Amino acid sequence: MSTKRYTSHDPELNSLYTQLAEHDLQPLWEMQGLLTKTPTVQTVPHRWSSTDLRRLAARSGDLVPIDRGGDRRVLALSNPGLAGAPYISSTLWAAVQFLLPGEMAPAHRHTPAALRFILDGDGVYTVLDGDPVTMARGDLVLTPAWSFHEHHNPGKKSMVWLDVLDLPIVAGLDAVFFEEGTSEKADQSAAERSTSERLYGQGSGLVPVGVDGPQPAHSPLTVYRWASTDQALTRMLEQSGTGQAHLRFRDPTRDRDVMPTLRCEMRRLRAGAKSGRERQTGSRVCAVLSGTGQADIDDRTFPLAAGDIFVVPSWSVHRLHADEDLDVFITSDAPVLEKLSLYRSEALDA
Amino acid sequence: MSTKRYTSHDPELNSLYTQLAEHDLQPLWEMQGLLTKTPTVQTVPHRWSSTDLRRLAARSGDLVPIDRGGDRRVLALSNPGLAGAPYISSTLWAAVQFLLPGEMAPAHRHTPAALRFILDGDGVYTVLDGDPVTMARGDLVLTPAWSFHEHHNPGKKSMVWLDVLDLPIVAGLDAVFFEEGTSEKADQSAAERSTSERLYGQGSGLVPVGVDGPQPAHSPLTVYRWASTDQALTRMLEQSGTGQAHLRFRDPTRDRDVMPTLRCEMRRLRAGAKSGRERQTGSRVCAVLSGTGQADIDDRTFPLAAGDIFVVPSWSVHRLHADEDLDVFITSDAPVLEKLSLYRSEALDA
Amino acid sequence: MSTKRYTSHDPELNSLYTQLAEHDLQPLWEMQGLLTKTPTVQTVPHRWSSTDLRRLAARSGDLVPIDRGGDRRVLALSNPGLAGAPYISSTLWAAVQFLLPGEMAPAHRHTPAALRFILDGDGVYTVLDGDPVTMARGDLVLTPAWSFHEHHNPGKKSMVWLDVLDLPIVAGLDAVFFEEGTSEKADQSAAERSTSERLYGQGSGLVPVGVDGPQPAHSPLTVYRWASTDQALTRMLEQSGTGQAHLRFRDPTRDRDVMPTLRCEMRRLRAGAKSGRERQTGSRVCAVLSGTGQADIDDRTFPLAAGDIFVVPSWSVHRLHADEDLDVFITSDAPVLEKLSLYRSEALDA
Amino acid sequence: MSTKRYTSHDPELNSLYTQLAEHDLQPLWEMQGLLTKTPTVQTVPHRWSSTDLRRLAARSGDLVPIDRGGDRRVLALSNPGLAGAPYISSTLWAAVQFLLPGEMAPAHRHTPAALRFILDGDGVYTVLDGDPVTMARGDLVLTPAWSFHEHHNPGKKSMVWLDVLDLPIVAGLDAVFFEEGTSEKADQSAAERSTSERLYGQGSGLVPVGVDGPQPAHSPLTVYRWASTDQALTRMLEQSGTGQAHLRFRDPTRDRDVMPTLRCEMRRLRAGAKSGRERQTGSRVCAVLSGTGQADIDDRTFPLAAGDIFVVPSWSVHRLHADEDLDVFITSDAPVLEKLSLYRSEALDA
Repeated sequence: MSTKRYTSHDPELNSLYTQLAEHDLQPLWEMQGLLTKTPTVQTVPHRWSSTDLRRLAARSGDLVPIDRGGDRRVLALSNPGLAGAPYISSTLWAAVQFLLPGEMAPAHRHTPAALRFILDGDGVYTVLDGDPVTMARGDLVLTPAWSFHEHHNPGKKSMVWLDVLDLPIVAGLDAVFFEEGTSEKADQSAAERSTSERLYGQGSGLVPVGVDGPQPAHSPLTVYRWASTDQALTRMLEQSGTGQAHLRFRDPTRDRDVMPTLRCEMRRLRAGAKSGRERQTGSRVCAVLSGTGQADIDDRTFPLAAGDIFVVPSWSVHRLHADEDLDVFITSDAPVLEKLSLYRSEALDA
Repeated sequence: MSTKRYTSHDPELNSLYTQLAEHDLQPLWEMQGLLTKTPTVQTVPHRWSSTDLRRLAARSGDLVPIDRGGDRRVLALSNPGLAGAPYISSTLWAAVQFLLPGEMAPAHRHTPAALRFILDGDGVYTVLDGDPVTMARGDLVLTPAWSFHEHHNPGKKSMVWLDVLDLPIVAGLDAVFFEEGTSEKADQSAAERSTSERLYGQGSGLVPVGVDGPQPAHSPLTVYRWASTDQALTRMLEQSGTGQAHLRFRDPTRDRDVMPTLRCEMRRLRAGAKSGRERQTGSRVCAVLSGTGQADIDDRTFPLAAGDIFVVPSWSVHRLHADEDLDVFITSDAPVLEKLSLYRSEALDA
Repeated sequence: MSTKRYTSHDPELNSLYTQLAEHDLQPLWEMQGLLTKTPTVQTVPHRWSSTDLRRLAARSGDLVPIDRGGDRRVLALSNPGLAGAPYISSTLWAAVQFLLPGEMAPAHRHTPAALRFILDGDGVYTVLDGDPVTMARGDLVLTPAWSFHEHHNPGKKSMVWLDVLDLPIVAGLDAVFFEEGTSEKADQSAAERSTSERLYGQGSGLVPVGVDGPQPAHSPLTVYRWASTDQALTRMLEQSGTGQAHLRFRDPTRDRDVMPTLRCEMRRLRAGAKSGRERQTGSRVCAVLSGTGQADIDDRTFPLAAGDIFVVPSWSVHRLHADEDLDVFITSDAPVLEKLSLYRSEALDA
Repeated sequence: MSTKRYTSHDPELNSLYTQLAEHDLQPLWEMQGLLTKTPTVQTVPHRWSSTDLRRLAARSGDLVPIDRGGDRRVLALSNPGLAGAPYISSTLWAAVQFLLPGEMAPAHRHTPAALRFILDGDGVYTVLDGDPVTMARGDLVLTPAWSFHEHHNPGKKSMVWLDVLDLPIVAGLDAVFFEEGTSEKADQSAAERSTSERLYGQGSGLVPVGVDGPQPAHSPLTVYRWASTDQALTRMLEQSGTGQAHLRFRDPTRDRDVMPTLRCEMRRLRAGAKSGRERQTGSRVCAVLSGTGQADIDDRTFPLAAGDIFVVPSWSVHRLHADEDLDVFITSDAPVLEKLSLYRSEALDA
């Protein structure tokens, strides 16, 4: 008997419940909380401070070689509501990754999709299916599902960045596959521009003709450089006149998000601005690139500083306030919710 | 401290692990089994026999009124691998529902999508957003996400049917919403054909013009009648010459499955036929409408008879054998896997 | 000098115009009617009577063997506004085709797409890329672009039907290709149901799984039988309560018209009903399957009887009146206009 | 009798032909050239030299005020094969437009879509539905269907540019609509960046969030600046290593061409390079932005210099040779052919 056995004071019903359990059946009418008016969410709002993250990442660098037990020196942000699971929310994995000078995190690939957002520093490059991509502050680097990737730090400085994966979703769908690759001791350098950027990253709406190959499920542009993002935010602010700009990173060749499961966005708030209160289904991971301010999430308030990372649970009401000009990177599972027709959003101040 | 605390014999490392736990962080290099070569699946292959299901459903009818604790008299098929969760697989809910003569299961709606497949009997009708739909053996009836639905049994016989929902997926995405409706004591009858059938169920490729309204996320045809399904299987058998026919239920107006999260199919095997061994990511619930045979799932073999229900876990190798002509209804989460680019399939005899 | 030479009383301008013409240039400011407030349409409303069409088709059968000069015994309906062009409208070809007992129109294919609508009789079958399709009253048979097709009359009666092609559009785009095929002296019979029908014509929303092959640009269902169409109209009338039913023939597997360039529809008006006045961009060919009534097109009125064919020019206001129950088949270039974002429509009584 | 009357030496047939003509019918078996093995194309290959175009445009500026008879001072390139029609090909209108200092071409809109490619100069700005867009050498400026547009030359120099429209296609579909707008005596200046550029023209894949409004049928980015295009070509050359780069201008937010009917591309060939011989259905207008070389089109060869414009008819074999580094802008009706499943292409050297 492997299922849950319900009990009843009514002997006949109790006897039925025994039989049900013996046949791997459960009575719906005894269950609680299956269908609730609004989502029952275990993920809680939380913020990890930049100071703690950097200190503990550095300490891990002192103590743990890159090859101890795994391929990556990574600290997973574990949501306090999730009973010890190493996930920042019910649907997302977030972590800080730390690489010392001269280190290399070897090649592998997996069906969970990943992205890196660089909160500080530079010097590391990632090789994505053979294409080396340098990483620097403010850059967004994609590691789409089933792409081989490895990280090299040929420089003199250690580097830390934010990793986000859709691992809980892929694991929940029983669809995790993993494969190790072969990292040759590659030349310890990367060109200023990756192949992906040369072909797809030049100008808005300019797409190469005659580049063949299978249609990928993700953006063919795998890195979004901060210089571009920053300029776009500046121009949107010029245009909007509201002190707020909000952009989405997209596949430049198709009408879709950068990867099938993850949406990426950037918000800029001028000092003194605050965003409207809103909520959505699906959870979001946010990282402060620069500035100070605060995040209100349901009835919690978190002060924000550069390098902080925080999580907004599904259907939580949230808003941002900028004390100084504030740049926040946001990634979420919104494409999943949208594709399954489960996305709901509400603007509470509208 | 709410997260998992790792330990180490190395005192420095152990001290780091304490600090990590205090800051809701976990060291990746200590984790096992996060990224596995192929999916780690808890769902196990299992079959529920028609005899048991009917007997226990009827016994529930004797003992439990329709309004005890909930709106529905439903026995959930609980997978032995899932530690007592009331789910048939990691992603699907399956249950038998039982309605006595004169009973009514009142109106509600929820974001999890549901479908009914009728293994036997008739006499009940469902009201779907105001449109009454009769239910009889072999029919597939949809209850798309957020559609009000209620069940009426105005006849003299009790009736039992199979319910399948995507509840684990929607719950895992923190996107369950629920609302009670108002069931008026409606006239105790339903027309032979629902509005949905008159408009969308007449002939292949014939679609009404001038029927306005919002574009639904699901098929506008909400019932697929057995007479049509049976005839289609017969014609496909004529055509194929292999003793096997396989059809998919689809939105007749668009290039998509019947609902955003659930695929529905029907297979017919002539006596003596057996299907090729195959596997896919995502799990599937199968119900035997008629015939006898067996299902091989990984290293298990289950005898099959009319009314039996069985589950195929993600990435399990499976095949069907028909002793007598065998008709099997199959529903799966394949649209979810496909939309997220996580669908993989393999034909092992090809 | 091959272009038009404009002239002017102003000698300098006249001299410029000479030079322009010498260099294959024309001055816009001298042109008239290029950009008009509403479309300047040469196609005029017109009706061809069934009596004339049948008599002249039969007379052609007496005098012209099937192989005289061409492959087909076809009379093209030539719009009186089009200066002798053999087209029923600026964008459509329509014709009656006549086949004597024992005759065969040999196989060929072409990039213009064709359809047949059978106004009367039966006995002929068409072979579409190897799949024989019987033809009878009320059936719509597709001959998609670049499909080999041939017509056989193995019976004892001659047969006549309506052909519609998108030839003017394809010719205007300089995209006409043509190829002769090989017609073997096939067995002089066709099965009751074509392969296309067995696979795609059974029930609304039922689609075969495992039928491989390239994705065609058109509906995989190539014949829509009158029995189905008639029943669908009947059910829609039950539903609508307005005395009018209107259906569209669609690809049953995708969200699109039957072919990339041609839309097909059927309207039924109960005796006494009249449709609302409407107009659209693009032209339409209409054929009366049964009943009597009249068509108002701009300021013209045409009496209608079974077998009559009429044309509605682009942007003409039109409506139908039924004296007796009226069934009208309609085909148009609407998919072309829609794909190019040039479709406009107006309901003038709304 | 308004249709063509065929004749025959056979008196019976001749009598039938009389009757056919009286009833607006034509016998297919007497027609020639309707369905040809490959397209019968009237458009001929042709080139207009920059020297002639500029001289005659300037001369028109001397003699013709902007308001004579029409709104625009435009010289239409008239294909020598098209019997005096003012079209550069069977499907495209191309022209040079000339605006003197201080002139203004007033606002109007029409369903034919237009684009401007600037071969030389600067100083004019176009106002597109209220958004002023400056124009300079190498820029591509869209005037999508039914957008109000007007041109202002507030500077001290006259300016000339290339206009291309899909007018023959829209006229052939009887879908030309036209409306005059109101041009206020706007401030005689335009900002460096249009609203369209600020929102959609910043970086590849960066799209604003929260910009509402109806979904247009065309790219929301209405100007593609030469600086971007030039840089993209440079990077593609770095990448390709073949001495050739080829890019397409696209809607940066969706998987489609810039407008529903027109494709825009740019090719760069290093000195000495030549492209492979190819052909396509549909016609193309090409303009040399810089460099020298030659175009082979079927059996014709045209020398090319900056400012030259040439036309490639449907299904003509064509190739480019660069003597000096050659930049060529190309626009075609390929989206129309593709949407109607009539696009064919062939690489003859592959």
